Amino acid sequence: MTLEELTRLAKPTPSKILVLLIDGLGGLPHPRTGQTELETAFTPNLDRLAQGGICGLTEPVSPGITPGSAPGHLALFGYDPLKFPIGRGIMEALGIDMEVGPEDVVARGNFCTVDAQGIVRDRRAGRISTQECARLCGLLGGLGLEGVTVVPAAEHRFVLRLRGRGLSAELADTDPRQEGLHPKETLALSPPAARTATLANEFVRRAREALAGEHPANMVLLRGFSQLAHLPSMRDVFKLNPAIVAGYPMYRGLGKLVGMKAVATGGSPAEVVSALEGLYQDHDYMLIHIKGADLAGEDGDFEAKVHILEVVDSLVPRLTALKPEVLAVTGDHSTPALLKGHSWHPVPFLLSSPWCRPDGVAQFGEKACALGGLGRFPALEVMPLVLAHALKLDKYGA
Amino acid sequence: MTLEELTRLAKPTPSKILVLLIDGLGGLPHPRTGQTELETAFTPNLDRLAQGGICGLTEPVSPGITPGSAPGHLALFGYDPLKFPIGRGIMEALGIDMEVGPEDVVARGNFCTVDAQGIVRDRRAGRISTQECARLCGLLGGLGLEGVTVVPAAEHRFVLRLRGRGLSAELADTDPRQEGLHPKETLALSPPAARTATLANEFVRRAREALAGEHPANMVLLRGFSQLAHLPSMRDVFKLNPAIVAGYPMYRGLGKLVGMKAVATGGSPAEVVSALEGLYQDHDYMLIHIKGADLAGEDGDFEAKVHILEVVDSLVPRLTALKPEVLAVTGDHSTPALLKGHSWHPVPFLLSSPWCRPDGVAQFGEKACALGGLGRFPALEVMPLVLAHALKLDKYGA
Repeated sequence: MTLEELTRLAKPTPSKILVLLIDGLGGLPHPRTGQTELETAFTPNLDRLAQGGICGLTEPVSPGITPGSAPGHLALFGYDPLKFPIGRGIMEALGIDMEVGPEDVVARGNFCTVDAQGIVRDRRAGRISTQECARLCGLLGGLGLEGVTVVPAAEHRFVLRLRGRGLSAELADTDPRQEGLHPKETLALSPPAARTATLANEFVRRAREALAGEHPANMVLLRGFSQLAHLPSMRDVFKLNPAIVAGYPMYRGLGKLVGMKAVATGGSPAEVVSALEGLYQDHDYMLIHIKGADLAGEDGDFEAKVHILEVVDSLVPRLTALKPEVLAVTGDHSTPALLKGHSWHPVPFLLSSPWCRPDGVAQFGEKACALGGLGRFPALEVMPLVLAHALKLDKYGA
Repeated sequence: MTLEELTRLAKPTPSKILVLLIDGLGGLPHPRTGQTELETAFTPNLDRLAQGGICGLTEPVSPGITPGSAPGHLALFGYDPLKFPIGRGIMEALGIDMEVGPEDVVARGNFCTVDAQGIVRDRRAGRISTQECARLCGLLGGLGLEGVTVVPAAEHRFVLRLRGRGLSAELADTDPRQEGLHPKETLALSPPAARTATLANEFVRRAREALAGEHPANMVLLRGFSQLAHLPSMRDVFKLNPAIVAGYPMYRGLGKLVGMKAVATGGSPAEVVSALEGLYQDHDYMLIHIKGADLAGEDGDFEAKVHILEVVDSLVPRLTALKPEVLAVTGDHSTPALLKGHSWHPVPFLLSSPWCRPDGVAQFGEKACALGGLGRFPALEVMPLVLAHALKLDKYGA
């Protein structure tokens, strides 16, 4: 069902929807035990929720497709990630809480190392310190180009922001994506982007000059030129007063893109839950974002991921005590410790509500959810499902 | 697969398809037992069919979406309800077996009560009797407006039919949808509807005058202006000679919209089955419509719904005795007694045929069907599935 069709059916009600989003929730079985991180974790509270609720596995984008953070979240928010692409530059800007105007163009930057022939020898300049990155960004800020801002991120990363009238993000990357090649000039991918391409190339030229005496970071690479996506607000589409609670700016930024109130908090699960408790009365849709499971998965640390899932489980009684009409637990994608990164595997999903139709699932885990009453389904359907179970959707058709 | 694509594959054969449609079939568990209406009912014949057949759960429109009667039926007939909207006025007209011409515009009418200031105080005029409604419709029939017909329905409801050349249904409701507001004038939603709007507003003006001395029904509200949908015939698309047997005119009307022969009968399940037996030799697709389960669900009467399902089960041997090549059992939507109305929950589905691939389902119920071989799937796929199992579809592609 399209956003336009849902807009006609959605109605405001006092009922509350709470989504517990555990980033990177899904996993793969440990070779010794045959149990995934979630199946290994002792999660009596989530298991009890599963027993009274209905479970399934979500496909964040499409079967076999590994989602980045933006598509994984947008789908859960109810926005088709294939229709609303979010550029890498924008994601980096959101990640450092950078202000981006509607006409700005932003790109993800890397400091890198080039040799005497100008060939890229290290795309990350030896992962320089964040402090060194800040010093170099200071140099690049004084190049005398109007409307150009350079903001440091972690290690070798920075964000380039171009501000002015009539800019276009239809630009090719300068990053050759492998070592042993020259950085590229950016190319305008459409005629109206020619002026922006000239500006970006002039920035790179001056940056190379300014960094000539530096080591190892003596050059920059740019990719993911992008502008703010204009997404319809959840307030207009779903008639919600939504909030996102997250310890990391990138996720708050994604929430803000769809009209959520974004609440910053410390990164621990307990801090996130405490922040939720503070605003619970003021909103009818709340999503709380737990980052730790994804970090542990990216590190390949099976045990650390098990531990964070047990910590999250221990906080579930504080969520159920709030008595939301709908409590959903899921993730934006899988991050199996075995793969040390995001993966395409579908993500455990649990919905608890007085109006759900419980299945026979007795444990919140991948194998159990695969046999759940919701089966394997697109994450894009999560929003209509939680709205329905909160009685926030009118009947379709006579 | 689109209707156009199916049209190219469908072929006439002597094999017979029988669909047992139990309106409002799906339910929610009773809080004491954890069993739904269907799971509670003693249904040995349906269970035996499930054991030899293949089961699943259908999504009538889309996950989370509660279907009205028209979308729920159209999907089972093989027509995408999102592509073929049926207006409320048309549904009301079908419900009273009113003749509607291809250019007519019809609207659902309510008699209502307004106060001295003209403000709506009761949108249903105290639910006047059907007899009183008929008397008042007689008054409105004599207002001297050419091409305007008013036909009573149950209690406070009537259907307004406008007949003439070049009429348009692009009109806004006059019903303010809540009490404490004035009825609205209808507005033309497109320029060609201006003349129809004038006619409808003149009808309302004269109706108000004619009803001024009445109590409590002293005004009318109109909504759901609509015209007949033009749907391709099942005869052309699916190469079937189809029939619908139903005790209620609305469902027969929906069948007629897609080219079915519509057979009226009494409303009891046994009467419907007897009528089927009388015409079984003449058709290759027959759908029999059982209304009682939906009525019990709407009343919130769990036990009555259980009872009607047991009555239906007891008639199943008369259906299997006919030896159709395909026997499918499902509903147009769920009507859980707990919710006292239509709901979004997917609907149990059972297909029995010599050519089906049985799954392990041993009982016809929601939890068992969720684990069935068909999983959770769009109701729109029911028609291709029953055609296939009756060997009525050619191979696609070389």
